[in-house]
Order: sequence, then C-alpha cells, then structure tokens
Amino acid sequence: MKENKPLILVTNDDGITANGLRKLISIMQSIGEVVVVAPDKPQSGMGHAVTVTTPLMLKQVHNDNRHPEYSCNGTSVDCVKMGLKVVLKRIPDLVVSGINHGSNASVNILYSGTMAAAIEAAIENIPAIGFSLNNFSPHANFDGFEQYIEKIARRVLENGLPPATCLNVNIPDVNGSEIKGIKVARQGKGLWNETYEERIDPFKRNYYWITGFFESAGEEEDTDVWAIKNNYISVVPVHIDMTSHQMIAKLKEWGF
Amino acid sequence: MKENKPLILVTNDDGITANGLRKLISIMQSIGEVVVVAPDKPQSGMGHAVTVTTPLMLKQVHNDNRHPEYSCNGTSVDCVKMGLKVVLKRIPDLVVSGINHGSNASVNILYSGTMAAAIEAAIENIPAIGFSLNNFSPHANFDGFEQYIEKIARRVLENGLPPATCLNVNIPDVNGSEIKGIKVARQGKGLWNETYEERIDPFKRNYYWITGFFESAGEEEDTDVWAIKNNYISVVPVHIDMTSHQMIAKLKEWGF
Repeated sequence: MKENKPLILVTNDDGITANGLRKLISIMQSIGEVVVVAPDKPQSGMGHAVTVTTPLMLKQVHNDNRHPEYSCNGTSVDCVKMGLKVVLKRIPDLVVSGINHGSNASVNILYSGTMAAAIEAAIENIPAIGFSLNNFSPHANFDGFEQYIEKIARRVLENGLPPATCLNVNIPDVNGSEIKGIKVARQGKGLWNETYEERIDPFKRNYYWITGFFESAGEEEDTDVWAIKNNYISVVPVHIDMTSHQMIAKLKEWGF
Repeated sequence: MKENKPLILVTNDDGITANGLRKLISIMQSIGEVVVVAPDKPQSGMGHAVTVTTPLMLKQVHNDNRHPEYSCNGTSVDCVKMGLKVVLKRIPDLVVSGINHGSNASVNILYSGTMAAAIEAAIENIPAIGFSLNNFSPHANFDGFEQYIEKIARRVLENGLPPATCLNVNIPDVNGSEIKGIKVARQGKGLWNETYEERIDPFKRNYYWITGFFESAGEEEDTDVWAIKNNYISVVPVHIDMTSHQMIAKLKEWGF
C-alpha cells in the first residue's frame, strides 16, 4: 500500500451527469483521491473509439469541492487518454469506469465504452475496473451495491493486476440485499438478436432504427451471464490480447 | 465448397471511396459474388462503435455494374449489421474488411474499425478477415499483394473458421515483390506513445490535438509486429473472448 491515499481516475461512457458516475465517484471518495474526466454527453455503444481527426476540449466543472472534475467532448477512451496525458500529474493507482447503465457482460464488452475505458488503462498497464448495472434506465437505482464495489476496488489496489489486464464487473438488477455475493467468472457466449425497423422520412427516404435483445448462447455456471441471472455480481478478468492461441497451430497447418 | 459462387460481404472503415476498399472489392470479385456495404465517410479509429441512438440510412451506389454497393451513414460495425440484417438475402460465406490504410497489428486491433467489422461477423459466427496495409496515406499503393489476399480468403472459404473467430491480416508497406511470405502470428505487445498538443482557439479556449507514435514492447519472432517488420504478411487468429483465463484461478484466491 502507498503512504498517500491512492489516486483514482474515474470515468464512464454515459456522460458526466449520469447517476451511475455520481455513485461511483462517491464510493471512490471513501477510498482515495478522486479525479474525474468524463464525456460531456452520452457515448454509449462507442466501443473503443478514439478521436483522432478533430481536436478535443476539456472543461473544468465543479459538482462539489472534494475533487477536480473535467468534462471532455470525446469518448470514454479519449477521457482516459486525456486524464493520463493532460490532467493528472502522476500515474493513477486505479482507473474505474461506470457505473454503466446497462450490462456489459458477455459480448457486450466489445461494444462497451465503459469497458473500453478500462481496457485503455490496461493497455497502459494501469489497474482498471469497469462497473455496470444490468439496467439500461437513466433512472436506475445504484444504491445498495456500495460495499461490493468498494471491496472489489480495494482488492485491486491491494493486490494489483497483471500487465494488460482489467476487470469487468457486472451487477444484477436487484435490491442490494438480494445479492448473493461476488463470483469470478468468464465471458459468457451470446449475441444481439437485432432487426432494423424500416421507416420512411418526409423526403421519401428509407431510414432504419436498430432494435433487438441480447440472446445468451447457453449459460454455463462459470459465466458472467449465469452469475448475474443468479443474483451474483460477476467479476471477469479481461486481457487485451485477442489472439486465439489455440487456433495458431491449426492455422499453421493450412500451409500458407 | 458450395455449388454456387460464395457470397462475400465487403466493408471497411475508411469509407466507400477509399482505394483500399476498391482493391479488396476487385480481388473478391475473382472469388465470389460480392456485395459492398461501407461507410459513407471515414470511420477510422471508431473501434467497435455501433449506432443505437440515431437511425441509419443506406444508399445504393453504383461504381460498376458487377455488384450491388451500398453506403451507410454509420460505422463499419453498423455496415456489417445492416449488411447481414437488411441487405443480404442469405448469410454470406465470408465477410472481408479493408484494405485498411494503416496497420492494425498489435493493440491497434482494439481501436480498429476494420477489425471491428471482422469481429462483428465473428460474433455472428460468420468467417471473416480484416486486411490492413502498414501505410496510413490515402494514396497508399495496394498493388502487388493481390495473390496473398486471394490465397488467404480462399483458404478461409475452403477450411472455414471456428466459431467466434476471425483473422487479422497485416501487410508490410513494401513492394509486393519484397514480400517473403505469409506468417501465422500472435498479437504483439505495444502501445501508442501519445501527447496532446495544446492550442488556444479564437475564443481563448484550450483545445488539444492528439499526436503520437506506436511503440512496440519487444518484437518476439512469433508476433505480428515482428512479421510486418521483416516483410512477412501476418495472419493473427482472433477470438472474441477477452477473458484472461489464466487470471481466473488467481482471482478466486482473492476471497471475495
């Protein structure tokens, strides 16, 4: 443990005014010195997007006097990059992202701006955690999970994380008292069963709204999808290496 | 092999007019029936972003009479989703993305819209390949690599790919005659060494341009970074599971 309070960079992808971010800030304030850099507007579903062709702006905002807070006109990944390269004077001990309004279990990790922020920190070998609640509503209730979030963050500060690794934490949408505990899990299988609803605009052009629902492909007991469904908070260790190592030998047999 | 010509969905993230896409289309036309759905403007660095809060539009464009071609006002992932759910009448045999103007080796896979398109197809269990040339210029020369791209695509059509798997193919920026061959590799380690250049706008506000360069963290011989540097075309098998399986046992010892 450090002598000083740990420095914690807090971000999200739902934007700086989101309830989930406010809750995460308040929990992190009990653990360490908090600096917030978060998007000035919702950036959900932006995956690991980074702004490279237009300049970015930072705006200092003050929601209370306990910590510096900046809004950024970019994505969650931009917020982490600007937090690390522009705002903070030293490398933070922890980067946390969320609490996302909506699950980032299973393949949702790939679309998630919340997890992209944590993954961006992992690329920089800084311990990071993305937190998500399985409720997409902007009015979701984030009360009752504080002890679990604090516990997970403290464990990461105590133990560290291996290089290039972060945690994907998903919270079931139940009352805090119904939580059965924290379960270490792997990324479950599944996909979005989507359709595009076609409409016609006043200029007779077709346009399409995406609609759909997440479809789990089997819920084995060791997956995050199973954990959430069974009232556990899931913790999936995530690595930035996307190589299918088991496919390498097979691919070599193809005789390129 | 199918009786009919294989159906190939072609997309990219540099936009429908990019030279790299034009080259990829012409190569795929020698292999199968081509349908193009590509962004109507550059969508580089958009990662796995998907458009959920605004509607999308498709516009049929005709660059020649050999295949249907659509531009879409979304990201590369939107293009794959709309290709699969709106445009195509049957599941394609192959989804190819690129040829990207710029390398997507190492961690660039995480930022890459080109690879996100291939990964989106992998989520749907459709064989997919992302192709990238290690040259960011819009005027990059894509000639001379045709035989390699065709070979890789044909091998995937012949052998298929396991579920949830796609290929990340990166081509060194040399003359085709200098290519030493195709090398199966793993995702190399590295990160972007970035700084934000600060300027002041006419209204006295600070704004920031991202600048930087990719920094490899060691170039072991089995990585994509090594392969490209040594004039090989790298082929990395990619899996959508980001779980750090080796971390699971350790994390369980934390005693949540």
